[in-house]
Amino acid sequence: MKKEKVVLAFSGGLDTSFCAKYLSEEKGYEVYTAVANTGGFSDEELKVIEEKAYKLGAVEHVTLDVTQEYYEKSIKYMVFGNVLRNGTYPISVSSERIFQAMAIINYAKEIKADYVAHGSTGAGNDQIRFDLTFDVLAPEIKILTPTRDMSLTREYEIDYLKKHGIEADFKKLEYSINKGLWGTSIGGKETLHSEQGLPEEAYPSQVTSTGTETLKLEFVEGEIHAVNGEVFENKVAAINKIEEIGSKYGIGRDMHIGDTIIGIKGRVAFEAAAPMLIINAHKMLEKHTLSKWQQYWKDQIGTWYGMFLHEAQYLEPVMRDCEAMLQSSQRNVNGTVIITLRPYCFSLVGVESSFDLVKTDFGDYGEVGKGWTAEDAKGFTKILSNPLRVYYANQKKNGK
Amino acid sequence: MKKEKVVLAFSGGLDTSFCAKYLSEEKGYEVYTAVANTGGFSDEELKVIEEKAYKLGAVEHVTLDVTQEYYEKSIKYMVFGNVLRNGTYPISVSSERIFQAMAIINYAKEIKADYVAHGSTGAGNDQIRFDLTFDVLAPEIKILTPTRDMSLTREYEIDYLKKHGIEADFKKLEYSINKGLWGTSIGGKETLHSEQGLPEEAYPSQVTSTGTETLKLEFVEGEIHAVNGEVFENKVAAINKIEEIGSKYGIGRDMHIGDTIIGIKGRVAFEAAAPMLIINAHKMLEKHTLSKWQQYWKDQIGTWYGMFLHEAQYLEPVMRDCEAMLQSSQRNVNGTVIITLRPYCFSLVGVESSFDLVKTDFGDYGEVGKGWTAEDAKGFTKILSNPLRVYYANQKKNGK
Amino acid sequence: MKKEKVVLAFSGGLDTSFCAKYLSEEKGYEVYTAVANTGGFSDEELKVIEEKAYKLGAVEHVTLDVTQEYYEKSIKYMVFGNVLRNGTYPISVSSERIFQAMAIINYAKEIKADYVAHGSTGAGNDQIRFDLTFDVLAPEIKILTPTRDMSLTREYEIDYLKKHGIEADFKKLEYSINKGLWGTSIGGKETLHSEQGLPEEAYPSQVTSTGTETLKLEFVEGEIHAVNGEVFENKVAAINKIEEIGSKYGIGRDMHIGDTIIGIKGRVAFEAAAPMLIINAHKMLEKHTLSKWQQYWKDQIGTWYGMFLHEAQYLEPVMRDCEAMLQSSQRNVNGTVIITLRPYCFSLVGVESSFDLVKTDFGDYGEVGKGWTAEDAKGFTKILSNPLRVYYANQKKNGK
Amino acid sequence: MKKEKVVLAFSGGLDTSFCAKYLSEEKGYEVYTAVANTGGFSDEELKVIEEKAYKLGAVEHVTLDVTQEYYEKSIKYMVFGNVLRNGTYPISVSSERIFQAMAIINYAKEIKADYVAHGSTGAGNDQIRFDLTFDVLAPEIKILTPTRDMSLTREYEIDYLKKHGIEADFKKLEYSINKGLWGTSIGGKETLHSEQGLPEEAYPSQVTSTGTETLKLEFVEGEIHAVNGEVFENKVAAINKIEEIGSKYGIGRDMHIGDTIIGIKGRVAFEAAAPMLIINAHKMLEKHTLSKWQQYWKDQIGTWYGMFLHEAQYLEPVMRDCEAMLQSSQRNVNGTVIITLRPYCFSLVGVESSFDLVKTDFGDYGEVGKGWTAEDAKGFTKILSNPLRVYYANQKKNGK
Repeated sequence: MKKEKVVLAFSGGLDTSFCAKYLSEEKGYEVYTAVANTGGFSDEELKVIEEKAYKLGAVEHVTLDVTQEYYEKSIKYMVFGNVLRNGTYPISVSSERIFQAMAIINYAKEIKADYVAHGSTGAGNDQIRFDLTFDVLAPEIKILTPTRDMSLTREYEIDYLKKHGIEADFKKLEYSINKGLWGTSIGGKETLHSEQGLPEEAYPSQVTSTGTETLKLEFVEGEIHAVNGEVFENKVAAINKIEEIGSKYGIGRDMHIGDTIIGIKGRVAFEAAAPMLIINAHKMLEKHTLSKWQQYWKDQIGTWYGMFLHEAQYLEPVMRDCEAMLQSSQRNVNGTVIITLRPYCFSLVGVESSFDLVKTDFGDYGEVGKGWTAEDAKGFTKILSNPLRVYYANQKKNGK
Repeated sequence: MKKEKVVLAFSGGLDTSFCAKYLSEEKGYEVYTAVANTGGFSDEELKVIEEKAYKLGAVEHVTLDVTQEYYEKSIKYMVFGNVLRNGTYPISVSSERIFQAMAIINYAKEIKADYVAHGSTGAGNDQIRFDLTFDVLAPEIKILTPTRDMSLTREYEIDYLKKHGIEADFKKLEYSINKGLWGTSIGGKETLHSEQGLPEEAYPSQVTSTGTETLKLEFVEGEIHAVNGEVFENKVAAINKIEEIGSKYGIGRDMHIGDTIIGIKGRVAFEAAAPMLIINAHKMLEKHTLSKWQQYWKDQIGTWYGMFLHEAQYLEPVMRDCEAMLQSSQRNVNGTVIITLRPYCFSLVGVESSFDLVKTDFGDYGEVGKGWTAEDAKGFTKILSNPLRVYYANQKKNGK
Repeated sequence: MKKEKVVLAFSGGLDTSFCAKYLSEEKGYEVYTAVANTGGFSDEELKVIEEKAYKLGAVEHVTLDVTQEYYEKSIKYMVFGNVLRNGTYPISVSSERIFQAMAIINYAKEIKADYVAHGSTGAGNDQIRFDLTFDVLAPEIKILTPTRDMSLTREYEIDYLKKHGIEADFKKLEYSINKGLWGTSIGGKETLHSEQGLPEEAYPSQVTSTGTETLKLEFVEGEIHAVNGEVFENKVAAINKIEEIGSKYGIGRDMHIGDTIIGIKGRVAFEAAAPMLIINAHKMLEKHTLSKWQQYWKDQIGTWYGMFLHEAQYLEPVMRDCEAMLQSSQRNVNGTVIITLRPYCFSLVGVESSFDLVKTDFGDYGEVGKGWTAEDAKGFTKILSNPLRVYYANQKKNGK
Repeated sequence: MKKEKVVLAFSGGLDTSFCAKYLSEEKGYEVYTAVANTGGFSDEELKVIEEKAYKLGAVEHVTLDVTQEYYEKSIKYMVFGNVLRNGTYPISVSSERIFQAMAIINYAKEIKADYVAHGSTGAGNDQIRFDLTFDVLAPEIKILTPTRDMSLTREYEIDYLKKHGIEADFKKLEYSINKGLWGTSIGGKETLHSEQGLPEEAYPSQVTSTGTETLKLEFVEGEIHAVNGEVFENKVAAINKIEEIGSKYGIGRDMHIGDTIIGIKGRVAFEAAAPMLIINAHKMLEKHTLSKWQQYWKDQIGTWYGMFLHEAQYLEPVMRDCEAMLQSSQRNVNGTVIITLRPYCFSLVGVESSFDLVKTDFGDYGEVGKGWTAEDAKGFTKILSNPLRVYYANQKKNGK
C-alpha cells in the first residue's frame, strides 16, 4: 500500500523535530520537510536545518526561498504604509509567517500531498496563520498538528526524540529569539509580565558605536533606492545593509504590547533597526512630498493593512485594494533623507528632494506672503468661519 | 466726543508694541492691552509686559491667566487622544493661541470694546486663530490688524517707535523662540529650508545629564497624577516638573513639517520634553488597559481632534463630541509607567496597573492555553477562514 | 441528591420545546424556562409561551420584560447613529437577541443556576450572541445546547415530543417570521437564493392605504418625542404608533444581504416601517441641525456601532465610548420632520426647528451674500487653492 | 494696439450674456465664448447658445464636448464609490462644473488668452469651482468676474442688454433648473426655507407610468454594461436610456440639504433617476460580490471622494489614490441586478452573478453547516469572547 504524503513546515526546532519523527515513525507517513526562507535564515542555518530533516526521517527536504517575493508583496507595502502596529512594532515576524505558509502550501499542492503539518501550539498567533492560509489555498489538503493536539511538554518531546536516537541540543534558551528580515522578536521572563524591560544582553546585537554618524537613505517612488549614496537594485540587500549600520547603535529596540489574533494581549520585545530607520525616514519624506489628505488617508489604510497582515488576513481581497491605493500614493515620494544615528536613538535631520512641497516660490511660512495678500487671508478666514458664525448665532438665539 | 475702545492682544514684542502706539497715537483709540497667559509666561515676564504696555500708552493693561482652563479644556484631551500631529508634534503653540484668543475676546466683550486688535501678519496660522475666534464669539466687535494691513517692515516699526520715544531692544534674534506650557517651537535659518536640523545651541534648554535616570509617571483616569511618587493636584505643576526633569536630557526635540491652515507646508523645530514623555507614557498605559478597538477609535478621534485644534477649529461642535468619546475611553486608564531617560531619548520600560489586561489568569501568550483548548483554536480558525474560503472557491470557479 | 438547575432561553418554538423536554426528561435537570421580551411579544403570546413551558416540564417559567431597557440602551443609540447596516437594514432582530441573552444570564445568576441553555443551531448568528454573552457575563455557568450538539432534524424533534405526549402544532411555515420591536425579518425559499424578492403575501402586514398621508415626527435631543403632535413619554409606544401608521403603506420593506458573524453572507427580507421612518427623519433633522463634521464623524461611529451590535459585541468597552459620542452629538437635534407616506415609499418633505442652521440671517444660498463680500470669497478661494497651486507648480517643475 | 483676449465660460443665461457684452463693449476685450458640455445640453440647445454668443459680440464661440471624459474621469468613480452625498444626493451638477472649468481653462491656455471669465456670483459654490480650477491649472491667466465684482441685479443686467440692443427673453422662471447628465437640480421659493417640498409641476419630468415595470441592469467590473439586455458600449447612452425609463416613474426625486464650500448650509431639490437606479443597483451587486471589509473601506473612500468632488478638490492628488483603490475594488463586480419600478420608488429584487458570494456550497445561512461543525462554532465563540472575558474578569477584580 502506498504511503500517504505529508508536507511538514520545518524549522529544525524542538516542536517540528518531534513532528518529523512522530509523523514518519508513529503515523507511517512519507514526510516531506520544507523550510520557507523569507530572509531570516543564513545559508549555514539552512544547511543545518536540512541535515536535521534527513536525520529525522524526511524522505525529501526542500528550501523554499521566498525572500524577494516577501519584499515585493509585503515589505514594500509596509514601507509605503509606514506600518508600525500600535505606533511601535514593524510587524516583524507575523508578516513573514504568512509568506512561509503560502510557500509551504503551494509546495504541498505541487507534490500532491495528502496532508500538511505545522508545529505551532494552541496558544499563539502562528497556528492561525498556518491553518487559515493552508485551508483557504488548499481546502482539499488536511492539516496535521501533533504538538497542538497532544499538548506535549518539552520534556516529553526531548525524551521521545532521545528514544529514537536523536540527541540534538534542545536546551531551552533564556531568551527565545525569532529572527527575520524585517526584525527580531525576543521573549523572556521579563516579557511575561508588564513591569520590566529586557537586559542589555538579551538583545542579539550589541551597542558598539558610541558617537554619532550620518546616514543617508534615498527613496524612489517610495522604495529604498540608495544607502549613503550606494544604489541597491536588490532591496533585500539594502535592508540588510541598513540593519548592519543601525544595529551597532542599538536602534529600533522597543517593547510591543498588542492584541493577538486569539484575543488576548501579548507583550514582546523586539529589535528592528532597518525597519525603524526606513519607515521613519520614508514617513518624513512623505511629509515633504505628499498633500495633507494623502497623508491622512495613507495613515488610515496603512494602519488597517498592518492590522490585517498581522492577523493572518493577507489573502483578504481588501488588501489588494489597499495596496492599489498605497502604490498610487508613492508617485512623488522621491528624495534623500538625512539621519543622525546615536546610541539607542536617531534624529531625522532633513530632506533633499525635487518633489519637496515645502520649497515654494511664494508664501514662505512666517514671512510675507507672495502668493496671496493680507486681504485674501482675511477673506479666507471670514468664509472659513461661516459654519461657526451660523452655529453660534443660532446657539445664542436658542439661549444656549 | 468719547474715544472708541480697542482691546489689543499684547505680548510686548515688536509687532504688538507698534500696534499699541499706533492705535492710540495715530488712530486716537483708548487702547486696553491684554496678555493671555496659558502657562508660557513667568511672573517676571508678565511684569515686564505690563510695564511696556503702559509705556506705550495703554489706558489699562490686564493679565488674563487661563492656564488652568487651558489644561482642563485642551491639554487634558490632547493627552487622552495622544495627540501628536503627523505623529510628531504635540501641537504646542497652536492650541494655546486659541485659548488666548478666547480670553482676549471675552475681555473685550466684558468691557464693551468697539474693536479688538492683534499683531499677526498675513502669512501664518495665528491670524486665522485670532480672526476666526474673535469673529465667531463676538461678530459685533470689529477686528483691527495694522501690521498685517500695512505690511510693515521691522525697520519701519522700530523707527516709528523710536520717533515716539520708545527705545526698547527689538533686535532680531537668530532663533525665534515661542515658549508655551505644552512645548517650545524654534524657527531659524535652518528651518526655512528642508535639509538641515538646528545646532545644539539653538535649543532653549541644554543637555546637562549624560547618564540614565528612571522616571515614574502615574495616571488616574488618563490624567497625570504623580511624578516619581509625588502626587500633583495641580496638573500644570506636574507638567512643569516633568519638563524640568526631561529637558536636562534634551528629550522631546524634533522637527515638525506640517500643513498650515493657509495651505502651504511649514517646517519648525520644537522641544517638548513633558508632552512627549506624558503622551508616550499615556499611550503605553492604554495599550495595557484598553481594548484593541478602543485604541483604534481613539486614534481616529485623537488625530482629528489634534488637526482641528491646530487649525483654529476648537469651537467646532464636533470637538465636544470628540471630547465626550475621549473622556469615556479613560475610565480604566490607571497605573504607573516606568521610563528610562537617556541623552536625547527615552525608553518605556513597563507598566504597573491593576487594570492591566495583559495580566490574565488564562492563556498566557505563547504558553499552553487555559481559557480555551486546541480544539477551540481550530474551530475559531475554521470559522474565521469562512469568508476567504468562500471567496477563493468562487475565484477558482470563475477561473481566476 | 439535589437536581442541578438549568435556565433555558425559551420561545415556545420547536427547538426550545424539544430542549425543555429533553433537558428535564433525559438529563434530569430542574428546568427553569425564561422568555426575555424586548417588545416583540404580545401579552397573549407570552401567556401561550408560559402554558407551553409548564406543559413541557418547566419547574418555573418567568417572563423577563426588558423592553424599556432595550430602548434605553440600544434603540436610542441606533437612532442617534442612524444605524442602517449596509445602508439598508435597521439591525432589527440581532440587537434584541443581545438584550434577551443578558436578561437570561442575569436571571440564571440570580437563581444560582448550574447551566444555561439555548436552542440555536450551529449555522447562524444567534448561537454566537447567546454563547458569548453568557460566557462573558457568567463564565462560571456552563452552556447547554442540545439541538446544536446533536444536529437533530425537525422530524426527530417532533417525533420525540409526540412520544412524550406533546402534540403541539409545529408545522413548518412557508415563511419564517421573526418579529421584534425594531422590525420583522422574513425568511423563505426566495431568500435562500439571490435572484428573487418575496411575494406580497409573505409580508406580515399588508398594504391597505393607497393614497398619501402626512406624518409629523418630532424629536427632542435626538429622541422621538411626538407623533403627529401627540407627545409620547413612553418611546416604545411611540415606535408602535409609527409602525402602525407606516405598515399600512408597506413602508420599510427591503432585502438585507449581509455578512454574518460566522463569516458567510446571508440574505433575508425584512419589514420595518417605524425604524425606517424614524431613522430617515432623524437623519434629515440632523442635516439641518448638525455641522458637516459632526455628521461625518457620527456616520463613522454609527456604522461601527451598528456592526458591533450586530456581531454580538455590545459588551465591548468601545461601545460605551461610541455611545458617549453619539449622546453628545444630539444636544441640538430638536425639531419636527414632515413626511409624506405613499404605498411602498415615503418622502421627507421638510423640517421645522429653531435649531435649523439652514435658516440664517446672512448669505442665503444662491443669493447675494450678507455675511461676506465678493472679495472675501475671492480671498477664500485663493488661499484654499494654495496646496494645489504649490503641488501643480512642483509637478510642472518636475516635468510631470 | 492689439486687443487682449478673454475666454468666457458661456451658458447663454442672463449673467454670462451680460458678461459677454460688458467685456467686449465696456472693456474692449476680444471675447471668446466657450460652452463646455458634460452631457446636459442637447444639440439644439448648443446651437441656440452659439447664436446668442455671436449676437453678443463674441469673436469666436466654441463648444467643448467633454461628456465622455466626464464619464471616464468622474461618473465612473462615483458609481464605483456609490457616491451619494449625505446619503442622498448624487453630486449632480457640482461634479460637472469641475470638468467644464478644466475644459475652459485648457482652451484658454491653447489660444493663449490673457484672461478667463465666468458669471458666477459671490454667494455660491460655482465661483469656487471656477476660480480654483482656473488658478491651479493656469496661474498665469487672470480671472474676470464682472457680475460678482459689481453685485448687479437682474434688472440692471436686463436693462444694460436692452440698451445694447439685446432683447432676449430673460424672464425669471419660477423654478431655476440646472440640468446635467448626472441629474437635475431645482431651486424655487420652497427650497429657500426648510419646511416645504416642491409641487409636482416643478419637476422637469412628469410621472406618466402608474403600474410597475421590471428593469435589469448589468454591470461588468463595476461599470454599467447592459440595460434590459441591450449592451451599451457608450456608457453615456446607457445613462440616458436609464434616465428615460426611470423618469417616467418620478424616480430619484429628493431634497438635498448640504454644506456648501462657502460653509453655509443649502437646500435644493433634485431629480436623478439614472444615478439613483445605477448607484443603488451597483451597491446591491457589491453586497453580493465584495467582502465585508472591501465594502467598509469603499464606503469610507467613496464618501471622501464625493465630498472632495463636490468641494472643488478634484485636482487634489489624494483623489488619484482614491480612484486607484476604487478601481481595484471592482474586479469582481459583475452581474445583473433586477429592479421593480413603481411610481416614485423602486425595489431591488435580486441579483444574478457568477461572482455571487451568497451562493456557496457549504453553510447555507440558517441551515445545517457543511463547511464547519457545531464544535467549530463553539470554539470560534470561545476565542472570539477572549477579549471580553479578560476585560470583564478584570473589571470584577477591580470592583467595577
